Amino acid sequence: MSPKSRKTSRSARRDWRSPRTKTAPDVAILYGWHTVKAALENPARRLRKLWATENAARRLQEARLSIAPEIVRPDFIDRRLGPDAVHQGLLAESDPLPSPGIEELPDDGTVLVLDQITDPHNVGAILRSAAAFGAGAIITTARHSPEATGVLAKSASGALEHVAMVTVQNLARGMEELRIRGFQLIGLDSEGDADLDALNLRAPLALVLGAEGKGLRQLTRATCDQVARIELKGAIASLNVSNAAAVALYVATRKLGAA
Amino acid sequence: MSPKSRKTSRSARRDWRSPRTKTAPDVAILYGWHTVKAALENPARRLRKLWATENAARRLQEARLSIAPEIVRPDFIDRRLGPDAVHQGLLAESDPLPSPGIEELPDDGTVLVLDQITDPHNVGAILRSAAAFGAGAIITTARHSPEATGVLAKSASGALEHVAMVTVQNLARGMEELRIRGFQLIGLDSEGDADLDALNLRAPLALVLGAEGKGLRQLTRATCDQVARIELKGAIASLNVSNAAAVALYVATRKLGAA
Repeated sequence: MSPKSRKTSRSARRDWRSPRTKTAPDVAILYGWHTVKAALENPARRLRKLWATENAARRLQEARLSIAPEIVRPDFIDRRLGPDAVHQGLLAESDPLPSPGIEELPDDGTVLVLDQITDPHNVGAILRSAAAFGAGAIITTARHSPEATGVLAKSASGALEHVAMVTVQNLARGMEELRIRGFQLIGLDSEGDADLDALNLRAPLALVLGAEGKGLRQLTRATCDQVARIELKGAIASLNVSNAAAVALYVATRKLGAA
Repeated sequence: MSPKSRKTSRSARRDWRSPRTKTAPDVAILYGWHTVKAALENPARRLRKLWATENAARRLQEARLSIAPEIVRPDFIDRRLGPDAVHQGLLAESDPLPSPGIEELPDDGTVLVLDQITDPHNVGAILRSAAAFGAGAIITTARHSPEATGVLAKSASGALEHVAMVTVQNLARGMEELRIRGFQLIGLDSEGDADLDALNLRAPLALVLGAEGKGLRQLTRATCDQVARIELKGAIASLNVSNAAAVALYVATRKLGAA
């Protein structure tokens, strides 16, 4: 339960309730055109500070701004984010969005459950696909999951404003709560028993994905109603997890849409 | 035609024929368990040098090694690759694999055509999905495409050994060559006219994908037989390009497999 864990020291993981437990970062760092623009358009997002280059500020003029940007040179943002961040002249700090409870989720659509997927690029891309396919929420554990900030927010390309991030302490318990609310729980695994395409899926549906390499943990797997695979006939037996999520969402959307 | 272009200075882009034109890097850097193990198992891959930590060398003992590893400490590899590379104790240098011509491709399956997709993570993930779904080749332009080395090879997770990388000078001309060989050319675009799922697809099939943000260039689009979209009903109108590729391959595999 060390408060200082790998890779997160830069992302302002300091907690606002207690220094010893982690529930949410106290600030979300947002950068890049789609990410910042979507945040500006989200009435629930409370921005604290916005920096923009002259060019970016000009592009933003059509957007309704809840906060005036401070005009800066691109290298001001470069220095804050490091050389690899493609920020397109926009950087914002905001309050983290509230994380709803499972009892608050609508029970008529699809959600994703992520079992210790730690790579923020992957989780961001999964959020983006969730928003694109109309999935309403992503459920993750408080530990072993990246924060909704920085690289994750950039990879999500604005999707953080559209998909609820639900954080639970215990994933299997969270899944049981989903089951009580009527969700069908379908795990995805390259060695799953059933072909996802052949399953009877119904709403509300939770698609459960594990981390690259490790896959679903034993208890997570045991808590699913069924574990399915995406049928692959090529030389490599598994997809990148965000690609698997996109395919699973595609299949589920088609099946539930037809119902 | 400057030989020194953005982002590529580190990746040994020096050409073996002439310093002024680029055709292939003179060395491929391979790291990470799946990437190096697949290279070791590929008889066509000529490794020059292999470094392994003691642990990794022990794990490799079951693999048939064409080259003896030099045992090093993890920080030796860290220093060569930088702190962000997840190398799992394995690093190799090899000759680049030969790049076949379009006339050498089998004409009974699916290939992908990438229109100036520059992000090596995305191209690597696309390669991995291509290998997983049994697509035989990826066609890219010599310029504006990442080299088959480093981050791309890592993201491909061994798929470089299974999917041919075809490099052409002019993409539209390459697509015309595919057409002459009988390929159906289907472009993917979030604003495509047709729903991909509703199209009559047939083998051999080329799926054509454009870069994030820019999409397909005008001439690329005009050279396609049809431009299709993946039907998305959510708040975000487009998928990450590697996710779009995975969904398109899924749809194509199902349709061609049923034929």
